[in-house]
Amino acid sequence: MTRSAIQAPEALSRIKGLVDPAMRAAVAALSDETMRLIAGYQLGWNDKDGRASDAGGKAIRPALAVLSAEAVTGVPDGGIAPAVAVELVHNFSLLHDDVMDRDVERRHRPTGWVVFGEGQAILAGNAMLTRAVEVLMETGESGLRSLPCLLAATQVLISGQSRDLSLEGRETVTLDEVIDMEGGKTAALLACSSSIGALAAGGDGAVVKALETFGWELGIAFQLVDDVLGVIGDPAKTGKSSSSDVRAGKRSSVVVAALSNGGTAGEQLAELLAKGAPSVEEDVTLATKLVVDSGAIEWANTEADARLQKAVDQLGSLGLQESSAADLAAVATYVVNRDR
Amino acid sequence: MTRSAIQAPEALSRIKGLVDPAMRAAVAALSDETMRLIAGYQLGWNDKDGRASDAGGKAIRPALAVLSAEAVTGVPDGGIAPAVAVELVHNFSLLHDDVMDRDVERRHRPTGWVVFGEGQAILAGNAMLTRAVEVLMETGESGLRSLPCLLAATQVLISGQSRDLSLEGRETVTLDEVIDMEGGKTAALLACSSSIGALAAGGDGAVVKALETFGWELGIAFQLVDDVLGVIGDPAKTGKSSSSDVRAGKRSSVVVAALSNGGTAGEQLAELLAKGAPSVEEDVTLATKLVVDSGAIEWANTEADARLQKAVDQLGSLGLQESSAADLAAVATYVVNRDR
Repeated sequence: MTRSAIQAPEALSRIKGLVDPAMRAAVAALSDETMRLIAGYQLGWNDKDGRASDAGGKAIRPALAVLSAEAVTGVPDGGIAPAVAVELVHNFSLLHDDVMDRDVERRHRPTGWVVFGEGQAILAGNAMLTRAVEVLMETGESGLRSLPCLLAATQVLISGQSRDLSLEGRETVTLDEVIDMEGGKTAALLACSSSIGALAAGGDGAVVKALETFGWELGIAFQLVDDVLGVIGDPAKTGKSSSSDVRAGKRSSVVVAALSNGGTAGEQLAELLAKGAPSVEEDVTLATKLVVDSGAIEWANTEADARLQKAVDQLGSLGLQESSAADLAAVATYVVNRDR
Repeated sequence: MTRSAIQAPEALSRIKGLVDPAMRAAVAALSDETMRLIAGYQLGWNDKDGRASDAGGKAIRPALAVLSAEAVTGVPDGGIAPAVAVELVHNFSLLHDDVMDRDVERRHRPTGWVVFGEGQAILAGNAMLTRAVEVLMETGESGLRSLPCLLAATQVLISGQSRDLSLEGRETVTLDEVIDMEGGKTAALLACSSSIGALAAGGDGAVVKALETFGWELGIAFQLVDDVLGVIGDPAKTGKSSSSDVRAGKRSSVVVAALSNGGTAGEQLAELLAKGAPSVEEDVTLATKLVVDSGAIEWANTEADARLQKAVDQLGSLGLQESSAADLAAVATYVVNRDR
């Protein structure tokens, strides 16, 4: 077991304990009962009838936010409100994306729109986004310093999802377009999460910039691995079907890399996928094999490792608190390698 | 022709000229091309392919915002950014509500989701909401003073739409519940619009409070008249079918007033509607007649007049700039009486 495999869960769990009360207070302040119910469901705190449950995610973004404050000041305090804000924005986007993508399951439970209806799920997302802004406003000066970063990341997040929807309808997609889009959908909010605590805590520009780059590269690495798992992931670990992206006909970075730089295997894959997403098991197996043969899996894994290294490299020589920098590196490594 | 019928359009048109450049700059600052295209379509500036068009609304909310700043300072300046922000939030909610309500036409054009798809319309709404917050942030101190009011109104707006969706599925609805819900959907943002300019301009608490009440009462009056028009409106004026709310089986304030306080006519209406929305023309005509016979139209008109009067009464004895107070009263009277 590597060091990050112990250190990261410890950091995540420690910070979850710090952020959780503020997170619950933020949601409790929603005056509309239905919005509170759906937000609580989305966050894994309650079932559809409001009974307590425990189905939350790993809360990576709040952890990064708190660590980025700690890295600058040595204490978590300045990162708590930003942590709440980024987690609210993340869950706003999950609620909405599930509606748009017609995803019916998340974290082994039916998605929000399946349980509460499309309209209510969209509204709860809106309430969470608005609440995120309110939380930073209520924090005074430190919140105001960090709000522009949250808003900018939200716009890039929205744009990423929009491009994802557009690309679905297109015949040909370049690898750059996919990486850009995935950057918007994943890396932008991770970049914000990784720097917003430092911003709130008054960290200087170079530190904030480096932490932002850390989060961006981490985000791309994370997404590349996600795309690898979408082809060759172990269903027992990922909780998804085998070759899930292949079955869905998804043009992920790995699939597009295979199609555009995959030699003969890539050409055969293109022929196979020209008929649409493979519908019989034999074709799923063949398409998966062709992606592997194309070298795209190897490319994505190598690229993810390079991005992770670039992320971790940002943390040196900035005068960051050593233990926080080590936690940031551990969380990044853990997140990228979680199911590989 | 009454005084307000001349004075109000003049004020609306003067202020539209002041706000329009800032509004266009705010939307132009959206970095995503698709989001800009949809926002421009929603605002009536362009068609679906980006060609210039002129299909905008009356821009009541920006006018109220600017007038509320003028009422305090004598100049419009402090109200411009708040005007942009409330109009962006208004259009965010229109884009989303049209998706949820499956409305296919607005201002004689197909709605955003019909043209661009559900997902892109939801995203463009999100981009406009986020942009509204950014616009106030970018304005510095005056924007920050007014941001909490915008966020609070947005939450009430979201809650109003959520209750509207919930009430649709319910068998019995009380008049109080409908008025509360309609207050959330219409009055909350009008209350914010009518006071946000004063807030931004540093108006004192009593003035801000009075302007907020002005906007709230105006909003309820506006909605009551809208509900009257939904039963007996002239299609040539409203641009909707005759008896549109009756046809849609909508439980508007007027319909619920007829059902709950409408005597024998109300009871007959309840029997008729128990079978669902009237599907044949004969039943539509009968239901419309029963609403009229119940006295609900008269009640709503009288209540709207009282609310409008209460709104206008707020404008006296606060030391407001006289001409701006007169414009506010004229716009309120014009908006409430537009198609009656």
